[in-house]
Amino acid sequence: MVNLGVLVSGSGSNLQAIIDNIEAGRLDAQIKIVISNVPGVYALERARTHAIPSMVISHKEYKKREDFDQKLLEVLKTHEVELVILAGFMRIVTPVLLRAFPMRVMNIHPALLPSFPGTHVWQTEVDYGVKFAGCTVHFVDEGPDTGPIIIQAVVPVYDDDTADTLNARILKQEHKIFSQAIQLYAEGRLKVQGRRVLAEGIPQAPDSFMINPPVTIFER
Amino acid sequence: MVNLGVLVSGSGSNLQAIIDNIEAGRLDAQIKIVISNVPGVYALERARTHAIPSMVISHKEYKKREDFDQKLLEVLKTHEVELVILAGFMRIVTPVLLRAFPMRVMNIHPALLPSFPGTHVWQTEVDYGVKFAGCTVHFVDEGPDTGPIIIQAVVPVYDDDTADTLNARILKQEHKIFSQAIQLYAEGRLKVQGRRVLAEGIPQAPDSFMINPPVTIFER
Repeated sequence: MVNLGVLVSGSGSNLQAIIDNIEAGRLDAQIKIVISNVPGVYALERARTHAIPSMVISHKEYKKREDFDQKLLEVLKTHEVELVILAGFMRIVTPVLLRAFPMRVMNIHPALLPSFPGTHVWQTEVDYGVKFAGCTVHFVDEGPDTGPIIIQAVVPVYDDDTADTLNARILKQEHKIFSQAIQLYAEGRLKVQGRRVLAEGIPQAPDSFMINPPVTIFER
Repeated sequence: MVNLGVLVSGSGSNLQAIIDNIEAGRLDAQIKIVISNVPGVYALERARTHAIPSMVISHKEYKKREDFDQKLLEVLKTHEVELVILAGFMRIVTPVLLRAFPMRVMNIHPALLPSFPGTHVWQTEVDYGVKFAGCTVHFVDEGPDTGPIIIQAVVPVYDDDTADTLNARILKQEHKIFSQAIQLYAEGRLKVQGRRVLAEGIPQAPDSFMINPPVTIFER
Protein backbone atom coordinates (compact mmCIF):
# COMPACT_ATOMS: atom_id res chain seq x y z
CA MET A 1 0.00 0.00 0.00
CA VAL A 2 1.64 3.21 -1.16
CA ASN A 3 0.71 6.58 0.30
CA LEU A 4 0.02 9.19 -2.36
CA GLY A 5 0.03 12.96 -2.23
CA VAL A 6 -1.74 14.41 -5.28
CA LEU A 7 -0.96 17.95 -6.42
CA VAL A 8 -3.56 19.65 -8.63
CA SER A 9 -4.36 23.03 -10.17
CA GLY A 10 -7.63 22.43 -12.01
CA SER A 11 -10.55 20.13 -12.62
CA GLY A 12 -8.71 16.98 -11.60
CA SER A 13 -9.98 14.43 -14.10
CA ASN A 14 -6.79 12.41 -13.65
CA LEU A 15 -7.30 12.61 -9.86
CA GLN A 16 -10.80 11.21 -10.38
CA ALA A 17 -9.49 8.28 -12.42
CA ILE A 18 -6.99 7.45 -9.65
CA ILE A 19 -9.73 7.68 -7.00
CA ASP A 20 -12.00 5.43 -9.06
CA ASN A 21 -9.27 2.84 -9.59
CA ILE A 22 -8.40 2.83 -5.88
CA GLU A 23 -12.07 2.39 -4.96
CA ALA A 24 -12.40 -0.43 -7.52
CA GLY A 25 -9.48 -2.26 -5.88
CA ARG A 26 -7.16 -1.87 -8.87
CA LEU A 27 -4.51 0.18 -7.06
CA ASP A 28 -2.61 -0.74 -3.92
CA ALA A 29 -2.56 2.91 -2.94
CA GLN A 30 -4.32 5.47 -0.81
CA ILE A 31 -4.48 9.21 -1.28
CA LYS A 32 -3.35 10.82 1.97
CA ILE A 33 -3.71 14.42 0.82
CA VAL A 34 -4.81 16.44 -2.21
CA ILE A 35 -3.12 19.83 -2.45
CA SER A 36 -4.19 22.55 -4.88
CA ASN A 37 -2.16 25.68 -5.51
CA VAL A 38 -5.36 27.35 -6.75
CA PRO A 39 -8.41 27.90 -4.50
CA GLY A 40 -11.86 26.74 -5.59
CA VAL A 41 -10.86 24.28 -8.28
CA TYR A 42 -13.09 21.28 -8.94
CA ALA A 43 -10.36 18.82 -7.96
CA LEU A 44 -10.89 19.93 -4.33
CA GLU A 45 -14.59 19.15 -4.63
CA ARG A 46 -13.73 15.68 -5.94
CA ALA A 47 -11.52 15.08 -2.90
CA ARG A 48 -14.29 16.18 -0.51
CA THR A 49 -16.86 13.98 -2.26
CA HIS A 50 -14.63 10.97 -1.62
CA ALA A 51 -13.69 12.02 1.95
CA ILE A 52 -10.05 12.58 1.03
CA PRO A 53 -8.18 15.26 3.01
CA SER A 54 -7.44 18.31 0.88
CA MET A 55 -6.00 21.76 1.23
CA VAL A 56 -5.05 24.85 -0.71
CA ILE A 57 -1.49 26.11 -0.61
CA SER A 58 -1.42 29.17 -2.82
CA HIS A 59 1.89 29.75 -4.58
CA LYS A 60 1.05 33.44 -4.50
CA GLU A 61 1.75 33.56 -0.79
CA TYR A 62 5.39 32.59 -1.31
CA LYS A 63 8.01 34.88 -2.76
CA LYS A 64 10.23 32.10 -4.07
CA ARG A 65 9.39 28.79 -5.71
CA GLU A 66 11.67 27.11 -3.19
CA ASP A 67 9.68 28.50 -0.25
CA PHE A 68 6.44 27.24 -1.79
CA ASP A 69 8.00 23.82 -2.34
CA GLN A 70 9.28 23.79 1.25
CA LYS A 71 5.72 24.26 2.46
CA LEU A 72 4.48 21.48 0.11
CA LEU A 73 7.23 19.25 1.43
CA GLU A 74 6.23 19.84 5.05
CA VAL A 75 2.60 18.98 4.35
CA LEU A 76 3.51 15.89 2.31
CA LYS A 77 5.81 14.65 5.08
CA THR A 78 3.14 15.32 7.73
CA HIS A 79 0.76 13.12 5.76
CA GLU A 80 3.41 10.39 5.38
CA VAL A 81 3.33 10.62 1.59
CA GLU A 82 5.69 8.25 -0.24
CA LEU A 83 4.84 9.03 -3.87
CA VAL A 84 3.93 12.50 -5.17
CA ILE A 85 1.49 12.63 -8.10
CA LEU A 86 1.33 15.73 -10.29
CA ALA A 87 -2.18 15.53 -11.75
CA GLY A 88 -2.48 18.67 -13.83
CA PHE A 89 -0.31 20.63 -11.40
CA MET A 90 0.68 23.77 -13.28
CA ARG A 91 3.76 24.74 -11.30
CA ILE A 92 7.42 23.94 -11.92
CA VAL A 93 8.75 21.76 -9.12
CA THR A 94 12.13 22.72 -7.68
CA PRO A 95 14.96 20.58 -6.29
CA VAL A 96 13.64 21.33 -2.78
CA LEU A 97 10.84 18.86 -3.45
CA LEU A 98 12.64 16.60 -5.95
CA ARG A 99 15.62 15.89 -3.67
CA ALA A 100 13.26 14.91 -0.85
CA PHE A 101 11.39 12.57 -3.24
CA PRO A 102 14.02 11.19 -5.65
CA MET A 103 12.29 9.20 -8.42
CA ARG A 104 9.16 9.54 -6.31
CA VAL A 105 7.45 12.40 -8.13
CA MET A 106 5.35 11.35 -11.14
CA ASN A 107 3.85 13.65 -13.76
CA ILE A 108 1.54 13.04 -16.69
CA HIS A 109 2.09 15.00 -19.90
CA PRO A 110 -0.47 14.96 -22.74
CA ALA A 111 2.03 14.27 -25.53
CA LEU A 112 4.40 11.62 -26.79
CA LEU A 113 7.50 13.00 -25.15
CA PRO A 114 10.08 14.08 -26.16
CA SER A 115 7.74 15.55 -28.81
CA PHE A 116 5.70 18.54 -27.68
CA PRO A 117 6.78 19.40 -24.14
CA GLY A 118 5.24 22.48 -22.54
CA THR A 119 1.67 23.73 -22.80
CA HIS A 120 -1.04 24.00 -25.51
CA VAL A 121 0.18 20.72 -26.95
CA TRP A 122 -3.02 19.66 -28.76
CA GLN A 123 -3.26 22.74 -30.99
CA THR A 124 0.48 22.59 -31.56
CA GLU A 125 0.19 18.95 -32.63
CA VAL A 126 -2.72 19.60 -34.96
CA ASP A 127 -0.90 22.55 -36.54
CA TYR A 128 2.34 20.60 -36.85
CA GLY A 129 0.50 17.86 -38.71
CA VAL A 130 1.69 14.83 -36.74
CA LYS A 131 -0.19 11.62 -37.50
CA PHE A 132 0.15 10.25 -33.97
CA ALA A 133 -0.13 11.83 -30.55
CA GLY A 134 -0.38 10.41 -27.05
CA CYS A 135 0.52 10.84 -23.41
CA THR A 136 3.42 10.08 -21.11
CA VAL A 137 3.80 9.36 -17.40
CA HIS A 138 7.33 10.13 -16.25
CA PHE A 139 9.37 10.65 -13.13
CA VAL A 140 9.98 14.34 -12.68
CA ASP A 141 13.53 15.61 -12.88
CA GLU A 142 14.82 19.16 -12.85
CA GLY A 143 14.07 19.82 -16.54
CA PRO A 144 10.76 20.66 -18.22
CA ASP A 145 9.01 17.37 -19.14
CA THR A 146 12.39 15.65 -19.45
CA GLY A 147 12.32 12.98 -16.75
CA PRO A 148 12.59 9.20 -17.23
CA ILE A 149 9.55 7.78 -19.03
CA ILE A 150 7.49 5.12 -17.21
CA ILE A 151 4.63 4.45 -19.65
CA GLN A 152 3.23 5.95 -22.85
CA ALA A 153 0.03 5.64 -24.85
CA VAL A 154 -0.34 6.51 -28.55
CA VAL A 155 -3.44 7.43 -30.57
CA PRO A 156 -3.97 8.55 -34.18
CA VAL A 157 -4.51 12.20 -35.15
CA TYR A 158 -7.22 12.62 -37.79
CA ASP A 159 -7.44 15.11 -40.63
CA ASP A 160 -10.53 16.70 -39.06
CA ASP A 161 -9.19 16.87 -35.50
CA THR A 162 -9.29 20.03 -33.45
CA ALA A 163 -7.39 20.64 -30.22
CA ASP A 164 -10.52 19.60 -28.33
CA THR A 165 -11.21 16.32 -30.13
CA LEU A 166 -7.54 15.35 -29.87
CA ASN A 167 -7.45 16.26 -26.17
CA ALA A 168 -10.51 14.05 -25.54
CA ARG A 169 -8.93 11.09 -27.36
CA ILE A 170 -5.68 11.42 -25.40
CA LEU A 171 -7.40 12.00 -22.04
CA LYS A 172 -9.06 8.56 -22.19
CA GLN A 173 -5.59 7.02 -22.29
CA GLU A 174 -4.24 9.32 -19.55
CA HIS A 175 -6.86 7.95 -17.20
CA LYS A 176 -5.51 4.43 -17.71
CA ILE A 177 -1.76 4.93 -17.81
CA PHE A 178 -1.40 7.15 -14.74
CA SER A 179 -3.04 4.52 -12.54
CA GLN A 180 -0.99 1.79 -14.22
CA ALA A 181 2.23 3.68 -13.49
CA ILE A 182 1.24 4.08 -9.83
CA GLN A 183 0.48 0.36 -9.53
CA LEU A 184 3.81 -0.54 -11.16
CA TYR A 185 5.46 1.61 -8.49
CA ALA A 186 3.35 0.04 -5.73
CA GLU A 187 4.40 -3.43 -6.87
CA GLY A 188 8.08 -2.43 -6.83
CA ARG A 189 8.48 -3.18 -10.54
CA LEU A 190 10.02 0.09 -11.76
CA LYS A 191 13.79 -0.03 -12.20
CA VAL A 192 15.55 3.10 -13.38
CA GLN A 193 18.69 2.50 -15.47
CA GLY A 194 20.25 5.72 -16.67
CA ARG A 195 17.16 7.46 -17.98
CA ARG A 196 15.37 4.25 -18.96
CA VAL A 197 12.60 2.91 -16.74
CA LEU A 198 12.11 -0.85 -16.96
CA ALA A 199 8.91 -2.58 -15.81
CA GLU A 200 10.06 -5.87 -14.29
CA GLY A 201 7.85 -8.92 -14.55
CA ILE A 202 5.26 -7.30 -16.81
CA PRO A 203 4.53 -9.16 -20.07
CA GLN A 204 5.87 -7.42 -23.14
CA ALA A 205 3.40 -5.31 -25.14
CA PRO A 206 2.25 -7.06 -28.34
CA ASP A 207 4.57 -6.72 -31.36
CA SER A 208 1.99 -4.53 -33.05
CA PHE A 209 1.99 -1.34 -35.07
CA MET A 210 -0.30 1.45 -36.21
CA ILE A 211 -0.08 3.39 -39.48
CA ASN A 212 -1.84 6.68 -40.18
CA PRO A 213 -3.24 7.37 -42.72
CA PRO A 214 -3.94 3.64 -43.21
CA VAL A 215 -2.16 1.60 -45.86
CA THR A 216 -4.39 0.74 -48.82
CA ILE A 217 -1.91 -0.41 -51.47
CA PHE A 218 -1.87 -4.00 -50.30
CA GLU A 219 -5.57 -4.20 -51.15
CA ARG A 220 -4.69 -3.70 -54.84
CA MET B 1 1.62 7.02 -63.63
CA VAL B 2 4.17 9.15 -61.79
CA ASN B 3 7.82 9.27 -62.81
CA LEU B 4 10.16 8.79 -59.87
CA GLY B 5 13.79 9.68 -59.39
CA VAL B 6 15.25 7.83 -56.41
CA LEU B 7 18.31 9.20 -54.61
CA VAL B 8 20.33 6.75 -52.52
CA SER B 9 23.58 6.52 -50.58
CA GLY B 10 23.60 2.96 -49.27
CA SER B 11 22.06 -0.48 -49.39
CA GLY B 12 18.72 0.72 -50.67
CA SER B 13 16.27 -1.48 -48.80
CA ASN B 14 13.58 1.17 -49.15
CA LEU B 15 14.36 1.35 -52.89
CA GLN B 16 13.84 -2.43 -53.05
CA ALA B 17 10.45 -2.17 -51.34
CA ILE B 18 9.36 0.47 -53.87
CA ILE B 19 10.60 -1.67 -56.79
CA ASP B 20 8.75 -4.69 -55.41
CA ASN B 21 5.51 -2.76 -54.97
CA ILE B 22 5.75 -1.34 -58.49
CA GLU B 23 6.37 -4.81 -59.93
CA ALA B 24 3.42 -6.20 -57.92
CA GLY B 25 1.14 -3.55 -59.44
CA ARG B 26 0.55 -1.71 -56.16
CA LEU B 27 2.08 1.59 -57.27
CA ASP B 28 1.11 3.70 -60.25
CA ALA B 29 4.71 4.75 -60.64
CA GLN B 30 7.87 4.00 -62.52
CA ILE B 31 11.46 4.63 -61.48
CA LYS B 32 13.11 6.60 -64.28
CA ILE B 33 16.53 6.92 -62.62
CA VAL B 34 18.35 5.84 -59.46
CA ILE B 35 21.17 8.21 -58.47
CA SER B 36 23.74 7.43 -55.80
CA ASN B 37 26.16 9.99 -54.43
CA VAL B 38 28.43 7.10 -53.35
CA PRO B 39 29.98 4.67 -55.85
CA GLY B 40 29.60 0.92 -55.42
CA VAL B 41 26.65 0.87 -53.04
CA TYR B 42 24.25 -2.07 -53.14
CA ALA B 43 21.32 0.14 -54.15
CA LEU B 44 22.97 0.48 -57.58
CA GLU B 45 23.13 -3.30 -57.89
CA ARG B 46 19.43 -3.50 -57.04
CA ALA B 47 18.65 -1.04 -59.85
CA ARG B 48 20.71 -3.03 -62.35
CA THR B 49 19.03 -6.30 -61.31
CA HIS B 50 15.67 -4.75 -62.14
CA ALA B 51 16.88 -3.04 -65.36
CA ILE B 52 16.38 0.44 -63.91
CA PRO B 53 18.72 3.18 -65.20
CA SER B 54 21.19 4.24 -62.52
CA MET B 55 24.19 6.47 -62.15
CA VAL B 56 26.69 7.79 -59.64
CA ILE B 57 27.00 11.53 -59.09
CA SER B 58 29.66 11.94 -56.43
CA HIS B 59 29.16 14.97 -54.21
CA LYS B 60 32.93 15.04 -53.79
CA GLU B 61 33.31 16.33 -57.32
CA TYR B 62 31.39 19.51 -56.51
CA LYS B 63 32.75 22.31 -54.39
CA LYS B 64 29.38 23.61 -53.28
CA ARG B 65 26.20 21.76 -52.28
CA GLU B 66 24.32 23.95 -54.74
CA ASP B 67 26.51 22.86 -57.64
CA PHE B 68 25.95 19.20 -56.75
CA ASP B 69 22.20 19.81 -56.57
CA GLN B 70 22.29 21.62 -59.91
CA LYS B 71 23.78 18.49 -61.47
CA LEU B 72 21.15 16.30 -59.77
CA LEU B 73 18.48 18.63 -61.08
CA GLU B 74 19.73 18.38 -64.65
CA VAL B 75 19.74 14.59 -64.56
CA LEU B 76 16.29 14.42 -62.93
CA LYS B 77 14.86 16.78 -65.55
CA THR B 78 16.49 14.81 -68.38
CA HIS B 79 14.73 11.69 -67.10
CA GLU B 80 11.41 13.54 -66.83
CA VAL B 81 11.18 12.92 -63.10
CA GLU B 82 8.10 14.34 -61.37
CA LEU B 83 8.61 13.11 -57.80
CA VAL B 84 12.01 12.84 -56.10
CA ILE B 85 12.39 10.07 -53.52
CA LEU B 86 15.14 10.28 -50.91
CA ALA B 87 15.65 6.63 -49.93
CA GLY B 88 18.48 6.73 -47.44
CA PHE B 89 20.12 9.65 -49.24
CA MET B 90 22.64 11.03 -46.77
CA ARG B 91 23.04 14.53 -48.18
CA ILE B 92 21.28 17.75 -47.23
CA VAL B 93 19.21 18.97 -50.15
CA THR B 94 19.44 22.67 -50.99
CA PRO B 95 16.85 25.10 -52.33
CA VAL B 96 18.33 24.58 -55.81
CA LEU B 97 16.58 21.22 -55.90
CA LEU B 98 13.66 22.03 -53.60
CA ARG B 99 12.50 25.08 -55.55
CA ALA B 100 12.50 23.05 -58.77
CA PHE B 101 10.43 20.33 -57.05
CA PRO B 102 8.15 22.14 -54.58
CA MET B 103 6.33 19.57 -52.39
CA ARG B 104 7.70 16.99 -54.80
CA VAL B 105 10.66 15.72 -52.76
CA MET B 106 9.81 12.98 -50.25
CA ASN B 107 12.07 11.66 -47.51
CA ILE B 108 11.71 8.83 -45.02
CA HIS B 109 13.06 9.29 -41.50
CA PRO B 110 13.29 6.37 -39.06
CA ALA B 111 11.66 8.17 -36.12
CA LEU B 112 8.35 9.62 -35.01
CA LEU B 113 9.11 13.20 -36.00
CA PRO B 114 9.35 15.74 -34.49
CA SER B 115 11.02 13.41 -31.97
CA PHE B 116 14.55 12.32 -32.85
CA PRO B 117 15.54 14.12 -36.04
CA GLY B 118 19.09 13.61 -37.29
CA THR B 119 21.15 10.43 -37.29
CA HIS B 120 21.75 7.46 -34.94
CA VAL B 121 18.13 7.64 -33.90
CA TRP B 122 17.70 4.03 -32.71
CA GLN B 123 20.43 4.15 -30.05
CA THR B 124 19.26 7.62 -29.05
CA GLU B 125 15.71 6.32 -28.63
CA VAL B 126 16.78 3.30 -26.59
CA ASP B 127 18.95 5.47 -24.35
CA TYR B 128 16.22 8.09 -23.96
CA GLY B 129 13.83 5.39 -22.82
CA VAL B 130 10.87 6.15 -25.08
CA LYS B 131 8.16 3.47 -25.08
CA PHE B 132 7.20 4.05 -28.72
CA ALA B 133 9.21 4.70 -31.85
CA GLY B 134 8.37 4.71 -35.53
CA CYS B 135 9.00 6.25 -38.91
CA THR B 136 7.85 9.23 -40.92
CA VAL B 137 7.49 10.03 -44.64
CA HIS B 138 7.50 13.78 -45.19
CA PHE B 139 7.87 16.35 -47.89
CA VAL B 140 11.31 17.86 -47.69
CA ASP B 141 11.62 21.53 -46.83
CA GLU B 142 14.70 23.59 -46.13
CA GLY B 143 15.06 22.44 -42.51
CA PRO B 144 16.51 19.20 -41.13
CA ASP B 145 13.68 16.61 -40.99
CA THR B 146 11.12 19.40 -40.52
CA GLY B 147 8.91 19.15 -43.63
CA PRO B 148 5.16 18.45 -43.71
CA ILE B 149 4.34 14.91 -42.56
CA ILE B 150 2.54 12.61 -45.03
CA ILE B 151 2.32 9.33 -43.12
CA GLN B 152 3.70 7.81 -39.93
CA ALA B 153 3.96 4.35 -38.40
CA VAL B 154 4.43 3.60 -34.71
CA VAL B 155 5.84 0.51 -32.96
CA PRO B 156 6.60 -0.32 -29.31
CA VAL B 157 10.11 -0.15 -27.85
CA TYR B 158 10.86 -3.07 -25.53
CA ASP B 159 12.95 -3.16 -22.37
CA ASP B 160 15.45 -5.52 -24.03
CA ASP B 161 15.72 -3.63 -27.32
CA THR B 162 19.04 -2.64 -28.84
CA ALA B 163 19.54 -0.16 -31.66
CA ASP B 164 19.58 -3.12 -34.08
CA THR B 165 16.38 -4.81 -32.92
CA LEU B 166 14.56 -1.49 -32.88
CA ASN B 167 15.88 -0.59 -36.34
CA ALA B 168 14.61 -3.92 -37.70
CA ARG B 169 11.15 -3.39 -36.20
CA ILE B 170 10.88 0.12 -37.66
CA LEU B 171 12.29 -0.87 -41.06
CA LYS B 172 9.39 -3.27 -41.67
CA GLN B 173 7.03 -0.31 -41.40
CA GLU B 174 9.23 1.95 -43.54
CA HIS B 175 8.87 -0.50 -46.39
CA LYS B 176 5.10 -0.09 -46.29
CA ILE B 177 4.62 3.60 -45.63
CA PHE B 178 7.05 4.95 -48.24
CA SER B 179 5.20 3.14 -51.03
CA GLN B 180 1.85 4.17 -49.56
CA ALA B 181 2.95 7.83 -49.57
CA ILE B 182 4.02 7.56 -53.21
CA GLN B 183 0.69 6.02 -54.18
CA LEU B 184 -1.23 8.76 -52.32
CA TYR B 185 0.75 11.25 -54.39
CA ALA B 186 0.13 9.31 -57.61
CA GLU B 187 -3.61 9.34 -56.91
CA GLY B 188 -3.56 13.11 -56.31
CA ARG B 189 -4.86 12.73 -52.77
CA LEU B 190 -2.25 14.76 -50.88
CA LYS B 191 -3.37 18.27 -49.97
CA VAL B 192 -0.95 20.51 -48.10
CA GLN B 193 -2.60 23.05 -45.75
CA GLY B 194 -0.05 25.07 -43.85
CA ARG B 195 2.25 22.33 -42.70
CA ARG B 196 -0.50 19.69 -42.46
CA VAL B 197 -0.82 17.09 -45.21
CA LEU B 198 -4.33 15.72 -45.65
CA ALA B 199 -5.04 12.43 -47.46
CA GLU B 200 -8.30 13.00 -49.33
CA GLY B 201 -10.70 10.12 -49.84
CA ILE B 202 -8.77 7.65 -47.69
CA PRO B 203 -10.80 5.99 -44.90
CA GLN B 204 -9.84 7.20 -41.44
CA ALA B 205 -7.44 5.00 -39.46
CA PRO B 206 -9.22 2.97 -36.74
CA ASP B 207 -9.85 4.81 -33.45
CA SER B 208 -7.33 2.57 -31.77
CA PHE B 209 -4.51 2.98 -29.28
CA MET B 210 -1.41 1.25 -28.00
CA ILE B 211 -0.01 1.38 -24.46
CA ASN B 212 3.52 0.33 -23.47
CA PRO B 213 4.19 -1.26 -21.04
CA PRO B 214 0.74 -2.87 -21.25
CA VAL B 215 -2.00 -2.06 -18.76
CA THR B 216 -2.64 -4.87 -16.28
CA ILE B 217 -4.69 -3.17 -13.55
CA PHE B 218 -8.01 -3.79 -15.26
CA GLU B 219 -7.38 -7.52 -14.94
CA ARG B 220 -7.60 -7.15 -11.14
